[in-house]
Amino acid sequence: MTTRIDASTLTSVAFDGDAITIIDQTALPEELIHLRITSIDALVDAITSLRVRGAPAIGIAGGYGIALAMRQIAEQEHGRTCTADAARRRLRPVAAQLRDARPTAVNLGWAIDRVVGALDAAPDGAGPEDLAALAHAEADRIRTEDAAACLAMAEHAQRFIDRPMTVLTHCNTGFLCTGGIGTALGAIRIAHDRGRIDEVLACETRPLLQGARLTAWELGILGIPHALVVDGAAAGIIASGGIDLVLVGADRIAANGDTANKVGTFAHALAARATGIPFVVVAPSSTIDRSTPTGAGILVEERPAHEVIGHGAASGSRARNPAFDVTPASLITAIVTEDGVSEPPFAF
Amino acid sequence: MTTRIDASTLTSVAFDGDAITIIDQTALPEELIHLRITSIDALVDAITSLRVRGAPAIGIAGGYGIALAMRQIAEQEHGRTCTADAARRRLRPVAAQLRDARPTAVNLGWAIDRVVGALDAAPDGAGPEDLAALAHAEADRIRTEDAAACLAMAEHAQRFIDRPMTVLTHCNTGFLCTGGIGTALGAIRIAHDRGRIDEVLACETRPLLQGARLTAWELGILGIPHALVVDGAAAGIIASGGIDLVLVGADRIAANGDTANKVGTFAHALAARATGIPFVVVAPSSTIDRSTPTGAGILVEERPAHEVIGHGAASGSRARNPAFDVTPASLITAIVTEDGVSEPPFAF
Repeated sequence: MTTRIDASTLTSVAFDGDAITIIDQTALPEELIHLRITSIDALVDAITSLRVRGAPAIGIAGGYGIALAMRQIAEQEHGRTCTADAARRRLRPVAAQLRDARPTAVNLGWAIDRVVGALDAAPDGAGPEDLAALAHAEADRIRTEDAAACLAMAEHAQRFIDRPMTVLTHCNTGFLCTGGIGTALGAIRIAHDRGRIDEVLACETRPLLQGARLTAWELGILGIPHALVVDGAAAGIIASGGIDLVLVGADRIAANGDTANKVGTFAHALAARATGIPFVVVAPSSTIDRSTPTGAGILVEERPAHEVIGHGAASGSRARNPAFDVTPASLITAIVTEDGVSEPPFAF
Repeated sequence: MTTRIDASTLTSVAFDGDAITIIDQTALPEELIHLRITSIDALVDAITSLRVRGAPAIGIAGGYGIALAMRQIAEQEHGRTCTADAARRRLRPVAAQLRDARPTAVNLGWAIDRVVGALDAAPDGAGPEDLAALAHAEADRIRTEDAAACLAMAEHAQRFIDRPMTVLTHCNTGFLCTGGIGTALGAIRIAHDRGRIDEVLACETRPLLQGARLTAWELGILGIPHALVVDGAAAGIIASGGIDLVLVGADRIAANGDTANKVGTFAHALAARATGIPFVVVAPSSTIDRSTPTGAGILVEERPAHEVIGHGAASGSRARNPAFDVTPASLITAIVTEDGVSEPPFAF
């Protein structure tokens, strides 16, 4: 199956005015399902259950969620008198509901704020239809800009892939989780196009196996040589000299550079530092949360225990399941965004 | 089910002269199966497939394997003239076959050598029956000494559990993998008896989930409060201040203290050092391999890829699957054996 899919034809999140269409990431790699979402409840469920995941893609989905909600408000008010202010008031609880779907992904709140903010540009006398058009256009812009940002950050990241390399990555940071080619995986894709990827080591990323299910699938489609490893094997393989570069994405970056990313990332950073290889974060600037001074202020989402204990654990087991960890800035060689390469000391 | 089991009635490996009986660790936690093994081929298969696992238990099984083989040689030679030398020669290929079952576990070769060596004590004119009795007795001694060693090392390890603590551990180091109460988990058990365990965080230990399947099961039987975490979550939880002590076992300890243990251990040691909490290895002295100067000389077993890719990975995925990693001595606070506590610089 996978060899016949052309990655360039796939879009992780799209919106046609009536429905948001996402690739259901929980069905991969067995099935490639495009899921049509026509309500905010369904969108919140898709985000919470990780059918759509990855910080940039969640942001795009959140932006389209506001556009969808405003389109539905406009349809409900069709033929009645509804001011722009009244329509915006009706949007508020929807925005709050959407924002709570994933608390750690800063891009979600960022995209919601941006689309809601765009509605302020509505001229005097504008109605809900006008606001819906504004929201749709702004959400489209977020996606288009994200696609452009992916290309730009991939280009900037090539500074760290200046010869054929074996690169270790974590979780999934490819086209599935962005509006473009991806963040860390986008950089790997461009490097592979230029003959500079010997092999990618993809950490399976427990508990939800985004590396095994999604990254391996994307790398397979793209024809990039790769091998899976369990998350705990990364440090030993790094220390044994088998890796040239660790390249990861981010879910939230504090003003000082402390970086929240999928749980398991921090240990790779420790191993990279202990071994003297670079550890580079690739993420759009929307991931930077200037209102949070350091990683200590980042709320780490605790997800359900069943994600951990579902794999043959002894009956009656409890579990702790933090979805993210925070890699301190002191372990990060560089943070690459569409704007360029930042090196320590970081001050965003 | 688990609440009715009394751990003190369970023995991981036993031998009655005709068969080696093991608890089949691959059937846990669903089923508690005692497996009778009556051939060396079946024993090698049980070791390779991890039905019996854990460095000390593998050693005990290997010792009993020599006793079983010698008993069978004696039965085959019954009524014929067979010298002790001839019987010992017949044992050699069996010992070599057994030794190759798990290359990293130093206890296996150690126990085999010890039981084979005990046969040299046979008096002039001894026959295969006499050798079989000697082998059985020596293998029994290995198990009994291991049980005593477990108690002694657990007692020595209490130095590091001097107040109620939350302890993180990896893989399974309990009664299942020794002839007694276990190594690291034995120390936790004794500390719990003395009211000094707030909670145990058990890393699930991918790919084979010994933590989720075996450690959680043992802790459940023992009534010790515990929670499972994915291996990649340990570093973040350690850094956030949630852990007081990391306590692990070992599969092979080089003369300088570099320690091979289940893959994933090294990252916990890095996180413990970065956070300033102790990282303590608890293992019988038979785990120390004085013939290997440093960790660089430790052969790390590469296990089959299907152990990694069996969990929903994309089709066609390759995997690398090192079973162990090597934690450098510089990250180890102490190595506790039955002989006492060793602190850096280690020189075994």
